[in-house]
Amino acid sequence: MSRTSPPEVSGKADLMALFRPRAIALVGASDDPFKIGGRPLRYMTDGKSDVKIYPVNPTRDEVQGHKAYPSIGAIPEQVDQVILAVPASRAEAAVADGLAAGVRSFVMFTAGFAEAGPEGIVAQEKLVATIRAGGARLLGPNAMGLLNMKDRIYSTFSSAMDRGEQAVGRVGVVSQSGAVGSYIHNLLTKRGVALSKFVATGNEADVEAAECAEWMANDPETDVVVVYLETGRDGPGLMRALDTARRNRKPMIVLKAGRTDAGQSVAASHTGAMAGSAAVFESVLQAKGALVARSMPDLVDMAYVCANGQLPKDNTLAIVTVSGGAGVMATDAAMEQGMTMPPMSEAAFDIVRQTLPLAVGRNPLDTTAATIGDRTLFMGAVETMLDSQPYGSAMFFMANAGMNTRDIAAMSDSLSALRARFPDTNFAICTQSTPENARALEALGFMVFLDPEACVRAFAALSRLPGIFANSDAADTSALPAQMALPARIDEAGASELLASAGLPFARTGTAATAEAAIALAQDIGFPVVLKIRSPDIAHKSEVGGVKVGLADAAAVQQAFDQVTANAKKAAPEAEILGVTVSQMVSGGVQTILGVHRDPTFGPMVMVGLGGIFTEVLKDTVMRPAPVSRTAALAMIKSLKGFAILDGARGEAAADIGALADALVTLSRFAAAQGETLSGAEINPMLVLPEGCVAVDALILPAG
Amino acid sequence: MSRTSPPEVSGKADLMALFRPRAIALVGASDDPFKIGGRPLRYMTDGKSDVKIYPVNPTRDEVQGHKAYPSIGAIPEQVDQVILAVPASRAEAAVADGLAAGVRSFVMFTAGFAEAGPEGIVAQEKLVATIRAGGARLLGPNAMGLLNMKDRIYSTFSSAMDRGEQAVGRVGVVSQSGAVGSYIHNLLTKRGVALSKFVATGNEADVEAAECAEWMANDPETDVVVVYLETGRDGPGLMRALDTARRNRKPMIVLKAGRTDAGQSVAASHTGAMAGSAAVFESVLQAKGALVARSMPDLVDMAYVCANGQLPKDNTLAIVTVSGGAGVMATDAAMEQGMTMPPMSEAAFDIVRQTLPLAVGRNPLDTTAATIGDRTLFMGAVETMLDSQPYGSAMFFMANAGMNTRDIAAMSDSLSALRARFPDTNFAICTQSTPENARALEALGFMVFLDPEACVRAFAALSRLPGIFANSDAADTSALPAQMALPARIDEAGASELLASAGLPFARTGTAATAEAAIALAQDIGFPVVLKIRSPDIAHKSEVGGVKVGLADAAAVQQAFDQVTANAKKAAPEAEILGVTVSQMVSGGVQTILGVHRDPTFGPMVMVGLGGIFTEVLKDTVMRPAPVSRTAALAMIKSLKGFAILDGARGEAAADIGALADALVTLSRFAAAQGETLSGAEINPMLVLPEGCVAVDALILPAG
Repeated sequence: MSRTSPPEVSGKADLMALFRPRAIALVGASDDPFKIGGRPLRYMTDGKSDVKIYPVNPTRDEVQGHKAYPSIGAIPEQVDQVILAVPASRAEAAVADGLAAGVRSFVMFTAGFAEAGPEGIVAQEKLVATIRAGGARLLGPNAMGLLNMKDRIYSTFSSAMDRGEQAVGRVGVVSQSGAVGSYIHNLLTKRGVALSKFVATGNEADVEAAECAEWMANDPETDVVVVYLETGRDGPGLMRALDTARRNRKPMIVLKAGRTDAGQSVAASHTGAMAGSAAVFESVLQAKGALVARSMPDLVDMAYVCANGQLPKDNTLAIVTVSGGAGVMATDAAMEQGMTMPPMSEAAFDIVRQTLPLAVGRNPLDTTAATIGDRTLFMGAVETMLDSQPYGSAMFFMANAGMNTRDIAAMSDSLSALRARFPDTNFAICTQSTPENARALEALGFMVFLDPEACVRAFAALSRLPGIFANSDAADTSALPAQMALPARIDEAGASELLASAGLPFARTGTAATAEAAIALAQDIGFPVVLKIRSPDIAHKSEVGGVKVGLADAAAVQQAFDQVTANAKKAAPEAEILGVTVSQMVSGGVQTILGVHRDPTFGPMVMVGLGGIFTEVLKDTVMRPAPVSRTAALAMIKSLKGFAILDGARGEAAADIGALADALVTLSRFAAAQGETLSGAEINPMLVLPEGCVAVDALILPAG
Repeated sequence: MSRTSPPEVSGKADLMALFRPRAIALVGASDDPFKIGGRPLRYMTDGKSDVKIYPVNPTRDEVQGHKAYPSIGAIPEQVDQVILAVPASRAEAAVADGLAAGVRSFVMFTAGFAEAGPEGIVAQEKLVATIRAGGARLLGPNAMGLLNMKDRIYSTFSSAMDRGEQAVGRVGVVSQSGAVGSYIHNLLTKRGVALSKFVATGNEADVEAAECAEWMANDPETDVVVVYLETGRDGPGLMRALDTARRNRKPMIVLKAGRTDAGQSVAASHTGAMAGSAAVFESVLQAKGALVARSMPDLVDMAYVCANGQLPKDNTLAIVTVSGGAGVMATDAAMEQGMTMPPMSEAAFDIVRQTLPLAVGRNPLDTTAATIGDRTLFMGAVETMLDSQPYGSAMFFMANAGMNTRDIAAMSDSLSALRARFPDTNFAICTQSTPENARALEALGFMVFLDPEACVRAFAALSRLPGIFANSDAADTSALPAQMALPARIDEAGASELLASAGLPFARTGTAATAEAAIALAQDIGFPVVLKIRSPDIAHKSEVGGVKVGLADAAAVQQAFDQVTANAKKAAPEAEILGVTVSQMVSGGVQTILGVHRDPTFGPMVMVGLGGIFTEVLKDTVMRPAPVSRTAALAMIKSLKGFAILDGARGEAAADIGALADALVTLSRFAAAQGETLSGAEINPMLVLPEGCVAVDALILPAG
């Protein structure tokens, strides 16, 4: 992926000691190069690392042919990283030894800490406190370690290193799981995607995935960041990492295991972290511009196009095939992924048909099997199509061409010419291919896919990047309003007053202690009005006969006042009665719900949904981390499945979504300003009228 | 896939001449073994076919070292199949030659017919008429041909045959596209799935994919049928094929290109067939028990498990991993696919923890990386889990174990023992693997997947089969009611009367020509009533003031009669007024819509949806080919996204879905009985009450 702005230099000197040590001690070094304690030594020796690794093992003189040292202090050079491959019982002493020797980072393979139960948790906490007090950082415990490809630092026991020499690439991988991380590393290697850095964070006693992701987003040697997550220990850190990646114009591809609630609860049980909401996690990733991968193959395809492609000018896609069916499947995928497929001009198609009389379609273009026998016809058709108008991406389905080395070799000149002639287009060829032919096509600047639909999905992800990078206003970064003091309990009328004072549009309302005052209020507000009993002790006012609607004149207000107060006293004799609220009666409009809740991982999340069955039965709501910008608020509203209801479906006037967006922004800013003092708030319903919107009812839950 | 009942013997002798010729003539035989006209000869010679293939080429004495014949008639043996690899201009003569020689089937590679334009269509029609008149069958034109693996008949130019010797398997492939068919063939071969038969049907002038699919569903050498479709030329034939497969307990895996409307219209443009509705196609496939593949990789995975697995007892799944994260992802997939994951017993988990103290979870079970070093621990945990209760399927995530041949060899005895001990469970291992190790694991009875989620999706497909095979009552097969005579135009009241006479529950209604008659009717029906003007010339009755609701007594009916007739006369002076309809006024209940429409491909389709916004905005409807059984009708209703509305959401009484199902059955049987005389019918709304349901309004569109 080419960048238009240089990446910023990291301010996190801390992790430099992890990713760029000058000398390493391997404590618990094993003579068996296949054991966990033997692997880093083998990898760094075989890989000719520039960085010296010293085996520490008091029971041996030599380890794998290298001189062994009895302790870290005995090493003649200053080491700044210690890899711990000792049993848990010996970890504490080794850490003390390392800190005494001035070590800045520990990579701890050792297991048997927090994941092993209460005693392990205590031991882990003690360990990390010691290390932090010593000014050092800890990766792990129970971590698979890290890789720095350029400097050939292989502080890991990952079996993905067994594949032999590791190419140096520009894709950084952060994984909360060693096994999954190494699986992904292997899948990427097999796909020809080379890494810059790799880290698997294990128990995350100190260094967490989010911090590593942010560090990689600032790493000048990394252009694409791949993140595999099982839990979000540091929600704000993850949001910061995504913000940093976006600012530095680096794609951040995130695969989050636990996208169902069942999966999420499994993840919580084995990571020992709190089970967050899968829906909140997904909302945050989308809002912050992650490329959200749905599976490991999806992640690999995304990393592949990000590593090999360029930012496309837009989401236009040209599809050219040797078979109609493949074009149909690719079109299906393109439509589902929101890509656009503008047709080539009629004139261009006429030219194509001069050499390929049976060719069908202006996009997708089926050149038919005729071009299998003569590939120059295929190339000619492609050139004509791309000359007729520019495309951000172009995909060619060439069936089994990749199995045939002679065929690929014969095409290489014309492919090179095509690549040179259309430098701004991403090209992919879908074909069954030998690995050698795939590498040959890649060397010519053509990405290679087996499945046309997977190719389209990956191109669609790539074409979302320009929008993601341009999207600086997803969050509202202007100064927040002042925090308000929230009482411990707030009744409905109090909540409405508070939110109205925060700037949200409420139906005109006042509180009256007497019938006369109620009548005066009603006259001021304008008839018809709604009367409700006001009492902090009565939650369900309708059920006790405490609500009267549609009061058209003073007499009706007088009668209603008498009735609701009598009803309330009868139903709840002990209740404190503060009088009644008198409100403007709003009718019509589309019912919506606005809400905020404080997520334990990500903080305040703001939500909007259509009211009634849409929210209750269809769960048609959308959320984002607060505060949101007006642009983001509008995008949220438009993404509702039932948006047509607001947009004037069924012949009604369109509702004022601008006003609704303003209310959403205001509510999100209120929530952000309140911070931890607010557990949640809801406006239900918010009636969206053809002009403006009016909140009718509200609820505030202070924290605690 | 093991069968519990023997497959039926095919009654379609016709296609036997295609799939099992005794001798073949290759007309237009080429001396170049890589040209289309040279490939079948090479394939059958190299493949040592038992069936003799005679090259026909009047310009040569020898072709690829075989004696060439100047004409079909000159061949000394009786040939019963002709492969046509001549230009379109020479096809007619070759067909005449073949028919004169008593040939029973033609496999026509030749292109340039229907796909080439109007002249080609005429030529194709003439050709097929000639062949049919001669008592023979035609595959093509523009077809890639067919394969019969057991008899080593390779009447094809598919490059998938270039891979060398073709294993004989039990998966039949039917494809409407040669290129996609051969791509799928290649993908299956690479995955170790061997074929029984293969056919690519090209232009389908005579033999269509549906007939081939039905034939394979009856073929004793085929256990699993894979069908790739771009268009449904023969809807009833496809439904018959699916019915046959289900009856014979053979999975039929269908990939339909064009699942979006855009894709569907591309498919129509290049197949020259009518663009059917993608939604109707999908509904038919689901209703008739196809395993619907979403992509080529999905199809390959389904074919793989159907070929290598057995029918699981149910959809229970055990997941055992060396990494928590993989278990989380697999759990996500299992939940999304509707599999169930019962936990092992507490006692069993205690036993597991005795050897694996850090193991987490009763299902998924994370044995942790501890078992990578000692695989016997992993096997022991699996045995304990499976002993604790039976599982239909079990998936093991073993990270990169498959890369390590020594590791796989060391496990083989314990894997064999496990396989033998739990014969009723399907086993899969997810691992990155060398092809050799994958084949070794498969030989031990373990399926191999790279991606855990793909494995779960394939297992989920397999676990749907018992339900599909048991589902004999998806269609209502009892005798249909008598067809009714439909007038050319039917007004709303007429439609209601007609559907009521067909057995659908309508609000009590009558027609009255005078106010007195209307009052009498209302008294008979019971107040309140609804009055509507009855006129075949007034479509939108409300808009002309032709409807009055909630009429509570005789006086109200009198007044309403006068008003609606006056309004109607004023708004439409020329309209023929037949009087008014007087109907029982039904209130309450859940609004639903019932409908039928005649699909050009599949015939009558019956539909149910929730009324109002559910249908209009959310398109929350479901359909099936008519007639439907009551079981199927209930399943349709329960599959609505807004089903909770019928099931008593929001604190209301549950609606009588049994009555709604009965109405759906009745409407579907009416539509099926009417056949081509009916274009469509709709009941909107059908109000579903706590007891019973009542249709309020109806529409019938006769054909033409």
